[in-house]
Amino acid sequence: MDFTGVYHKASEQMCYPLNEDELIVNLKTGYDVKRVFIYYGDPFEAGILGGKEQWAGKKEEICFKKHLRHHLWWTTTLTPRFKRCKYYFELHTEEETWYYFENGFLSEEQIGMEGRMLQCFVMPWMNPADVNSTPDWVNDTVWYQIFPDRFCNGTPEKNGADIEKWRTGPVSNAERFGGNLEGIRKKLPYLHDLGISGIYLNPIMEAESTHKYDTRDYTKIDPQFGTNEEFARLVKEAHAHGIRIMVDAVFNHCGRSFGPWADVVEKKSGSPYADWFMIQDWDAFERHGDTRDGRFYSFAFTDRMPKLNTNNPEVIRYFCQVCKRWIREFDIDGIRFDVGNEVSHRFLKELRRQLKSVKPDLYLLGEIWHDASQWLGGDEYDSVMNYPLTSGIQDFFLDQAAEKDEFEYMVNRCYTMYMQQNNNVIFNLLDSHDTERLMNRCQDLDIFYQQLAILFTMPGSPCIYYGTEIALEGAHDPDCRRCMPWDEIDSAENQKKIELMKSLIRMRIQEDACRSLYFDFPHKYSQKRCVEYRKLNLDGKWIEVLLNCGSEPIEIQGQGEILFARRCEGNSLDVRGTLIRRLPSTV
Amino acid sequence: MDFTGVYHKASEQMCYPLNEDELIVNLKTGYDVKRVFIYYGDPFEAGILGGKEQWAGKKEEICFKKHLRHHLWWTTTLTPRFKRCKYYFELHTEEETWYYFENGFLSEEQIGMEGRMLQCFVMPWMNPADVNSTPDWVNDTVWYQIFPDRFCNGTPEKNGADIEKWRTGPVSNAERFGGNLEGIRKKLPYLHDLGISGIYLNPIMEAESTHKYDTRDYTKIDPQFGTNEEFARLVKEAHAHGIRIMVDAVFNHCGRSFGPWADVVEKKSGSPYADWFMIQDWDAFERHGDTRDGRFYSFAFTDRMPKLNTNNPEVIRYFCQVCKRWIREFDIDGIRFDVGNEVSHRFLKELRRQLKSVKPDLYLLGEIWHDASQWLGGDEYDSVMNYPLTSGIQDFFLDQAAEKDEFEYMVNRCYTMYMQQNNNVIFNLLDSHDTERLMNRCQDLDIFYQQLAILFTMPGSPCIYYGTEIALEGAHDPDCRRCMPWDEIDSAENQKKIELMKSLIRMRIQEDACRSLYFDFPHKYSQKRCVEYRKLNLDGKWIEVLLNCGSEPIEIQGQGEILFARRCEGNSLDVRGTLIRRLPSTV
Repeated sequence: MDFTGVYHKASEQMCYPLNEDELIVNLKTGYDVKRVFIYYGDPFEAGILGGKEQWAGKKEEICFKKHLRHHLWWTTTLTPRFKRCKYYFELHTEEETWYYFENGFLSEEQIGMEGRMLQCFVMPWMNPADVNSTPDWVNDTVWYQIFPDRFCNGTPEKNGADIEKWRTGPVSNAERFGGNLEGIRKKLPYLHDLGISGIYLNPIMEAESTHKYDTRDYTKIDPQFGTNEEFARLVKEAHAHGIRIMVDAVFNHCGRSFGPWADVVEKKSGSPYADWFMIQDWDAFERHGDTRDGRFYSFAFTDRMPKLNTNNPEVIRYFCQVCKRWIREFDIDGIRFDVGNEVSHRFLKELRRQLKSVKPDLYLLGEIWHDASQWLGGDEYDSVMNYPLTSGIQDFFLDQAAEKDEFEYMVNRCYTMYMQQNNNVIFNLLDSHDTERLMNRCQDLDIFYQQLAILFTMPGSPCIYYGTEIALEGAHDPDCRRCMPWDEIDSAENQKKIELMKSLIRMRIQEDACRSLYFDFPHKYSQKRCVEYRKLNLDGKWIEVLLNCGSEPIEIQGQGEILFARRCEGNSLDVRGTLIRRLPSTV
Repeated sequence: MDFTGVYHKASEQMCYPLNEDELIVNLKTGYDVKRVFIYYGDPFEAGILGGKEQWAGKKEEICFKKHLRHHLWWTTTLTPRFKRCKYYFELHTEEETWYYFENGFLSEEQIGMEGRMLQCFVMPWMNPADVNSTPDWVNDTVWYQIFPDRFCNGTPEKNGADIEKWRTGPVSNAERFGGNLEGIRKKLPYLHDLGISGIYLNPIMEAESTHKYDTRDYTKIDPQFGTNEEFARLVKEAHAHGIRIMVDAVFNHCGRSFGPWADVVEKKSGSPYADWFMIQDWDAFERHGDTRDGRFYSFAFTDRMPKLNTNNPEVIRYFCQVCKRWIREFDIDGIRFDVGNEVSHRFLKELRRQLKSVKPDLYLLGEIWHDASQWLGGDEYDSVMNYPLTSGIQDFFLDQAAEKDEFEYMVNRCYTMYMQQNNNVIFNLLDSHDTERLMNRCQDLDIFYQQLAILFTMPGSPCIYYGTEIALEGAHDPDCRRCMPWDEIDSAENQKKIELMKSLIRMRIQEDACRSLYFDFPHKYSQKRCVEYRKLNLDGKWIEVLLNCGSEPIEIQGQGEILFARRCEGNSLDVRGTLIRRLPSTV
């Protein structure tokens, strides 16, 4: 047996309570393992630990598995009657049988050796307080990300001299176009009509820059965007349209005009805020220019964004207050944490505890680009921005040598990293204000819609970046932050694209299989780049997604009710074509 | 390359800050990997994430490795200048080179592909508040575990009718022998003379049983053992002898006479304590007999020990108060948490936060028999009882077919499960009140001292169970809880054993290499069961441990100053012999 490839751990996403009753157990093995059994039972069935107890678990086969690039991922759900579970595995290759314990592999003979203390895996108790729980509404939500200065200027008549004329095409980060909350409010019917049920707003608190990631005042809406009252009104009207609001929280760093920083600049180490930041050199820290000299720590070496010391209990207390005020004053539904991986875990644990006690279904989303399992244990974030999926999709379309199996491995990797509770609300996106736009990565609209078809059929919570409904273009920052071309929105071409987006969103909302956690890869097609997967809803109904990412047309197999189709004629799915069907119940 | 065997994760014990400056990075590979390099640097060295940045890390070879049964464990320490670290690995087999990223393996060609988003591993920020920190004094401590009723009766003149006469040989759990705090106090000079610097006391709070794991009153010393004042005095005198005191906290369950349980029995679901327990059937829960019917949850199905609901904030608050009172009233140094894996993580996190703010160097030890990494992240326990090492040593001596490599793999497994901070204070034991005694597992005294030699040269904090200094016998509970035979303590045989124990303890204290975290397995001897390992202190000085666990005498190689020897004559280490030497500096 390939011993090196076998891995299990009675924690994290390998073994966790899904709720108070069900325990998910996952196991990784190499491809040589053909069958897996689990022996499980209550640890105290045979008496107290350490004695001469002869414990024997109940044997059950683990039948479900996913394919990863080099591993099989076996998965089962147990229901331990007394909330405790002790277990080990029996692994079969074609030739051998081995028993897998926490300390390694034993043969049948070794297991039986008198006096040996078998080191089983243990889930000691499924405590409700430790069950990872995420807000119910998020999986039903379709998000729309708005970069406020560039989405809609609702009050052009009030434009000052510093506001550029709204225009199409490239922009710079220094330019201001007057997009504001009033503009967003006026577009709520448009967004509602599109099918949107959540808005993720880039920062709106007072700040110097256009992007507002250099906060000056965490309690005051930026005057360029509106007032606190206007934001409260926006949230209220959005709620009336069935649209939730998520704000961007920049707690990793602040702007240079943030009061406590200004105080430190004035009073140096004598300031009561001296320990709110991470200042190393008290003689030189105020100097301008990048911070590679280490005089203070800042976001990405920019001196405009000094890092906040989220290790300091005072800072923790301050930002807990800020968030509670946002909930109270504005009734927000979610918070997206900018640079959510650099703030301290201590801060996040405390913040979650406090905020969930005020608003239990608040959605806490971390900006984390890498494996975020450390933050998704149930006591910090509910979810993260699913950039591993973003990159995985991008890489598959980029690398024409990658076969459909690579797509399967990539999706399976993304959905075996975290617990199901997190997967169910993970924030899926194809682009954002931090990347080039999806359209710029796609050679044509067909590939663009193939990727959107994936977005809308993956487990989690999909988000489109403003303008994606008209396939807005834009290279890397600042080009991905262009003005929304409202003047051109009624063109036949744009209206056609908007209709396509609506049909995708409608499908996502109407077909619970689109939103579900359950999928498989049937491998019915032999073409190397014919991506095919199925999604299953809780009633046992399937939908099928078929993407022709190869260079030859594909003959479509079987029947089904078409939910979305592009470059699909009769039984042929053309190159770059997309087909999503509801499968007959008999499948 | 054996891809299945490669594993890394930028969290837990695979990547963690050792302190505010140093980052430990570990990697698991198969044995086919011959060289490993890491590329690392600040994530923002080339600009902000998601753009077109061309990040390139600094390349460094990882030279240190440990051998596990099926894996190599590569380890290095980095010092990220700006507290952030982004990295990936380069792996060489004899034929191939692969680059290992969070999402898998890439060839050199694939890395260079234009537009690919490389998914590096990331340690985003080494926040001081999240650094795992454990009390300094614990590694220097040699523990002595006392089961109070059986250690010493300091006031035999006060024995009531219910107290049995102190005797040698088998005992039952129902019998009481009058061992008490006064007895322990009187033996402090004895323990000090033995070299002991910490006492771990089995429960001493008021309870019905002899073992006292069924607490009645968490704030009152059991009258059979003494008074609160006597315990305060014991701790004070122990401190004067340089001996710390650790108490046993039974918070997973209580006894049936615990006030809140009694209240619930009286008032049923109307009791204000109704949610302090886990009662499922309000009509039948008071019935006696085992709890397999699920009418309420209890420890190991015994109805005498109802489980406490440590999910309940009131219960959490109550036991935080209890512990703070123990610190204030008695000045205890450590708390051992009975059934430390079944209480909620939420409770433990809150408890640690509160207790460490009152007494920062308090030692928090969990009774966990299995892999406890979930509890050792730095915000719950400092340490656990190292039963995996106990079992591993036991299995090696039991299974004569196991070769010395198995011993090496076992020790390496135990010390790669947790972070170094935890390894440095892990509670090592060969037996306890929950197992048969060491002597009963050993065919003779030679093997007994071989195992003790291991105990005293392993990283962590060693503990001997009372009576081990005279090789006290005892099978499984209740036999492992015999009375300490003070009448026989002065026999020549016992005095000889005590001298041996003293010499082992003295060696542990005097040779910092015995206590250090650093060891290797030189493989100088060809004999299959000649266990050999070296320990290194911070001054670069080595000691060597040699155990002949085979069936032929071994010719000892090289020179060294003998620290402990048994069955060792000239250059020959006899079967079952032990030799510990300080190696010359030139080695």
